[in-house]
Amino acid sequence: MLSFENDYSEGAHEMVLKLLLETNMQQESGYGTDTFTQLAKEKIKEQLDCPEAEIKFLVGGTQTNQIVITALLKNYEGVLAADTGHISTHEAGAIEFCGHKVLTLPHNLGKINADQIRDYVETFYADGNHEHMVAPGMVYISHPTEYGTLYSMEELASLSAACREFEIPLYLDGARLGYGLMSEETDVTMADIARLCDVFYIGGTKVGALCGEALVFTKNNLPKHFVSTIKQHGALLAKGRLLGIQFLALFSDNLYFDISRHAINMAQLLKNGFTQKGYQTLIDSPTNQQFIILENEKLKALQQQVRFSFWEKYDDAHTVVRFATSWATTKESVEQLLALI
Amino acid sequence: MLSFENDYSEGAHEMVLKLLLETNMQQESGYGTDTFTQLAKEKIKEQLDCPEAEIKFLVGGTQTNQIVITALLKNYEGVLAADTGHISTHEAGAIEFCGHKVLTLPHNLGKINADQIRDYVETFYADGNHEHMVAPGMVYISHPTEYGTLYSMEELASLSAACREFEIPLYLDGARLGYGLMSEETDVTMADIARLCDVFYIGGTKVGALCGEALVFTKNNLPKHFVSTIKQHGALLAKGRLLGIQFLALFSDNLYFDISRHAINMAQLLKNGFTQKGYQTLIDSPTNQQFIILENEKLKALQQQVRFSFWEKYDDAHTVVRFATSWATTKESVEQLLALI
Amino acid sequence: MLSFENDYSEGAHEMVLKLLLETNMQQESGYGTDTFTQLAKEKIKEQLDCPEAEIKFLVGGTQTNQIVITALLKNYEGVLAADTGHISTHEAGAIEFCGHKVLTLPHNLGKINADQIRDYVETFYADGNHEHMVAPGMVYISHPTEYGTLYSMEELASLSAACREFEIPLYLDGARLGYGLMSEETDVTMADIARLCDVFYIGGTKVGALCGEALVFTKNNLPKHFVSTIKQHGALLAKGRLLGIQFLALFSDNLYFDISRHAINMAQLLKNGFTQKGYQTLIDSPTNQQFIILENEKLKALQQQVRFSFWEKYDDAHTVVRFATSWATTKESVEQLLALI
Amino acid sequence: MLSFENDYSEGAHEMVLKLLLETNMQQESGYGTDTFTQLAKEKIKEQLDCPEAEIKFLVGGTQTNQIVITALLKNYEGVLAADTGHISTHEAGAIEFCGHKVLTLPHNLGKINADQIRDYVETFYADGNHEHMVAPGMVYISHPTEYGTLYSMEELASLSAACREFEIPLYLDGARLGYGLMSEETDVTMADIARLCDVFYIGGTKVGALCGEALVFTKNNLPKHFVSTIKQHGALLAKGRLLGIQFLALFSDNLYFDISRHAINMAQLLKNGFTQKGYQTLIDSPTNQQFIILENEKLKALQQQVRFSFWEKYDDAHTVVRFATSWATTKESVEQLLALI
Repeated sequence: MLSFENDYSEGAHEMVLKLLLETNMQQESGYGTDTFTQLAKEKIKEQLDCPEAEIKFLVGGTQTNQIVITALLKNYEGVLAADTGHISTHEAGAIEFCGHKVLTLPHNLGKINADQIRDYVETFYADGNHEHMVAPGMVYISHPTEYGTLYSMEELASLSAACREFEIPLYLDGARLGYGLMSEETDVTMADIARLCDVFYIGGTKVGALCGEALVFTKNNLPKHFVSTIKQHGALLAKGRLLGIQFLALFSDNLYFDISRHAINMAQLLKNGFTQKGYQTLIDSPTNQQFIILENEKLKALQQQVRFSFWEKYDDAHTVVRFATSWATTKESVEQLLALI
Repeated sequence: MLSFENDYSEGAHEMVLKLLLETNMQQESGYGTDTFTQLAKEKIKEQLDCPEAEIKFLVGGTQTNQIVITALLKNYEGVLAADTGHISTHEAGAIEFCGHKVLTLPHNLGKINADQIRDYVETFYADGNHEHMVAPGMVYISHPTEYGTLYSMEELASLSAACREFEIPLYLDGARLGYGLMSEETDVTMADIARLCDVFYIGGTKVGALCGEALVFTKNNLPKHFVSTIKQHGALLAKGRLLGIQFLALFSDNLYFDISRHAINMAQLLKNGFTQKGYQTLIDSPTNQQFIILENEKLKALQQQVRFSFWEKYDDAHTVVRFATSWATTKESVEQLLALI
Repeated sequence: MLSFENDYSEGAHEMVLKLLLETNMQQESGYGTDTFTQLAKEKIKEQLDCPEAEIKFLVGGTQTNQIVITALLKNYEGVLAADTGHISTHEAGAIEFCGHKVLTLPHNLGKINADQIRDYVETFYADGNHEHMVAPGMVYISHPTEYGTLYSMEELASLSAACREFEIPLYLDGARLGYGLMSEETDVTMADIARLCDVFYIGGTKVGALCGEALVFTKNNLPKHFVSTIKQHGALLAKGRLLGIQFLALFSDNLYFDISRHAINMAQLLKNGFTQKGYQTLIDSPTNQQFIILENEKLKALQQQVRFSFWEKYDDAHTVVRFATSWATTKESVEQLLALI
Repeated sequence: MLSFENDYSEGAHEMVLKLLLETNMQQESGYGTDTFTQLAKEKIKEQLDCPEAEIKFLVGGTQTNQIVITALLKNYEGVLAADTGHISTHEAGAIEFCGHKVLTLPHNLGKINADQIRDYVETFYADGNHEHMVAPGMVYISHPTEYGTLYSMEELASLSAACREFEIPLYLDGARLGYGLMSEETDVTMADIARLCDVFYIGGTKVGALCGEALVFTKNNLPKHFVSTIKQHGALLAKGRLLGIQFLALFSDNLYFDISRHAINMAQLLKNGFTQKGYQTLIDSPTNQQFIILENEKLKALQQQVRFSFWEKYDDAHTVVRFATSWATTKESVEQLLALI
């Protein structure tokens, strides 16, 4: 059965596996002090134009969000996020578990903007009762968003300016960062993100790795004793090499970017195929997630042969579904899908 | 340089990597719902003689300890453990971070006994102030312990009986479980552990996997909504297959046990070599960790050619150091080590 | 200066102070085991028609909400509440600090209804991703609400039925309960609340006490080791008598109800005065909080002589302000206020 | 029945009640912004010789410990304390509930010393695994201790010096502070404590108040947004005046010190009475708690007529019991007790 269900249906890119194999019996020290982890950090820093960047590798996205947000917030602060943000909806209360409120803002296709931040913070401090309320202490955005959309350079710069105005860090969740950076419609580079955000992560799990996210602190702002914080969250791998080796492979020979562009190409092929056949999209997504409006009967028929995700009801006769491409999507599978519609 | 520093210096056993490669491009659903995870659970259950066992795969030991203990304790309860237990000493406060006190008992070569449990619980409830104290709600043991020692069947059975008497679960941390089960001096099987403990985990990270621990609930006691709890702790892998595949390999063709026995054989070779040359051990460890007393000058010389761990000062002229073997230790490396002493 | 700023501007009702004085030198045991606390519980139970009720006295409202919600929720659960609920807005993240998300529902004049509960829970369990989301584990309502409104018997009964259908407890925050029960427009008694809610609290701080809330578990559902939970939250008074004595006074000779009715009478006098002079109310509040729409210039003038609370901007020329009466409000002060408008 | 069970068996000193009554109907703003609270702070500051002191009033001791420790520790830090410290033993895990480990040191009659601190911190940072351990981030002492003992000026100064050397705050729990300051054997004043400690609290609950502790930050180190932190812990009284008025009374006309000296006088009378009759003390306590060794048969007989506390078993024939005096203890009651032995 064809699957466009998500971008984590396969294992890892072959170059990632190859490097795991080649290095397998090399004895290395644990907990991220190995040589591969060090090399991977250097490779990533080359992309960032940010010599002061400090990088830590973690296993997954929710874990990364939870640790960063807990480490950067004061006990009385919460994190501002779109109401559709992953931390707001699909992390089973991971942020609240660590003691912090997610302060939600209405989203616009998954995005929030600088005016919302400014308005929230100013309204907060103008409120005579603000000492009884949760102070906004950080801004969380995802890029690409949960709707596959992207911040433009201008949007990102104005968010960054608003955050600096109020001296609260801007954190970018890049679970699908490669697919954003390689979109044909973006004007944002990884170096721009390093410059405009205080902390962000480069997603590996959805972009060619078995697991792993590269967390980047860009402003000499690595929290003190951060290894202890990682350990305290149960997130410190004994074999830290597992993450270092994977990111070393992904950031060698442009692999991360090449495989991301491939996923974008496949998504464009898929979208064009659907639109040429008269289907409409819910959102004109420039990244690897495509949101197509299907007649309910067509949906049922297609489900017999293809796996994809329910997104939301559109009207009584139609449903929005999501097709995701990835580094692993083949042109053949897209063509097979298009042949079925 | 030779390394006996720990049991997680290399990657994974070749059969583990082989299965990762073979299955790499098979599309599977996420979050542990894949077919490999299901197969791995079945394979493990065959070893347990416990049809009601419920198994979840997690990434690391501290994470597993943190999640199990948080899920099983009531808010007002703490966990009893040896003062040398991993949760007491080397998890950076991971248990306290989740709101629970570790109630420590004096260890005997890393172990605690049923009388200590009984005495603690009875003294607690006899104390007129016990409502102002942390109630003992669970018992944590490690097997092998941090000192490489093992519980005998009789010791484990009496701990189990004490826990049942007070209706508190017995949890066994099996980070190095294979090395305990394959020791020549044990009378405890994995099925015994499943019978006597309420929950335990089978360590993968230190026994041939890149990462991963298999958590086993043995008494129809899987906590409700446990997947949500895992997610809330940032511990739910999108590509759950990574863990399932590795345990499928480890529990096929007796691999887990064979490679564990190999490590034990290497440890015996190492210990015998030292003792034949007149060295003394701190503890007569029957597992893969060996604690040797070195003259300080010998220690310094040896450090130039071998990596091992400082354990503790013995006296002004001597130091205890730890040599660890593993599935990856070669006979050649042990012989090279012995040639150096 | 006149003050209608809130319902906690004075100390305690004279009968409360009188009993504190009379009993002052009587030696009693601590932590709520004193004889006054026992008597107070008996007095309250007489009002509840609920022999199985179990009562604990706590110091304040946020503390009570925090402890009850933490004690009743499972770790993976959150609490449903109106987006205007006190726990949602003005407790500085006290619920999240204890690890739980407040799941907000749009309010209707401060209230939520059974259909919202039913819809939320059913949608939650129908969502294929619900294991990645926070499960609704409890319903929080305030009565009177933050808008001074009241649930009717029918509304409360249907909320109760919805909660029982899904087996989640219904918790009523009665910080101003007396003012709700003595409203001329209510058909709900304290016994009804005991019957329909699983847990609720009878507010003392705003109804004649120096401090204190009486927390009532109505369904044999007092959490185990609840004294330890109170202690763990730093909420167990050494001199528990302070709370017991106050509630003993309040629930002797109908005092709690008489002084609540007085506040209602004063609120009606105030409201009638404003409406007779042509002012409009934002909400037709039947309780002790009155929300009056003032011209901005009138507001400024009035602020010179009277303290009251800003509620919200109405339009460019008008503002909504809140006047609160209480057990301590005198008829003279209301008449002075009305003379000023 | 006579009671020497504890120092919180009665209500409040008559001057405290008198001021509560006199001020009862004065309208004041809430949450500690009232005029009495301001006056009380000024009165206390007069005693401290510390113009930069910042004072907050809280309800109880465990609450105060929990809030201070949580507000001052970083997430990866724990608090050093004697193994007999109140936070270590009798706060039902209140510190761990907030995410922090209590790092215990062996006590000497309830006290710890500078060498222990220095040794712990130095050993910690010398340990190659310290990133996997809980960092010592604060020192907690009680004065008087749980054993009624006192730190000398020299001991306190050396603890203070050790803390400054490592830049970790020294926190003094003064639940019974008055009884320490008025001891005939102390050379420590309240101003000394303000100078040597970074934060401490002046106990009210056990020294004449109905409830309340005055928390003092002495080094311009009041945590930011501390009111929000108090609120988040459910510890912000709506009627903050309750605490302000009581401390205003206690710190007017030397009351706090006079009533503390009275308790000391009563304790001396009691101790001398026992020793003159040949009884021995476990500890030569200079404060209001006296630890007497009773024959078991004498104990049983005495329990028929006097309430006191079991402390610990001495030998098979003897038991240590505690007699506590307080501001409320009368000379008559001590004489009656002595007549019974």
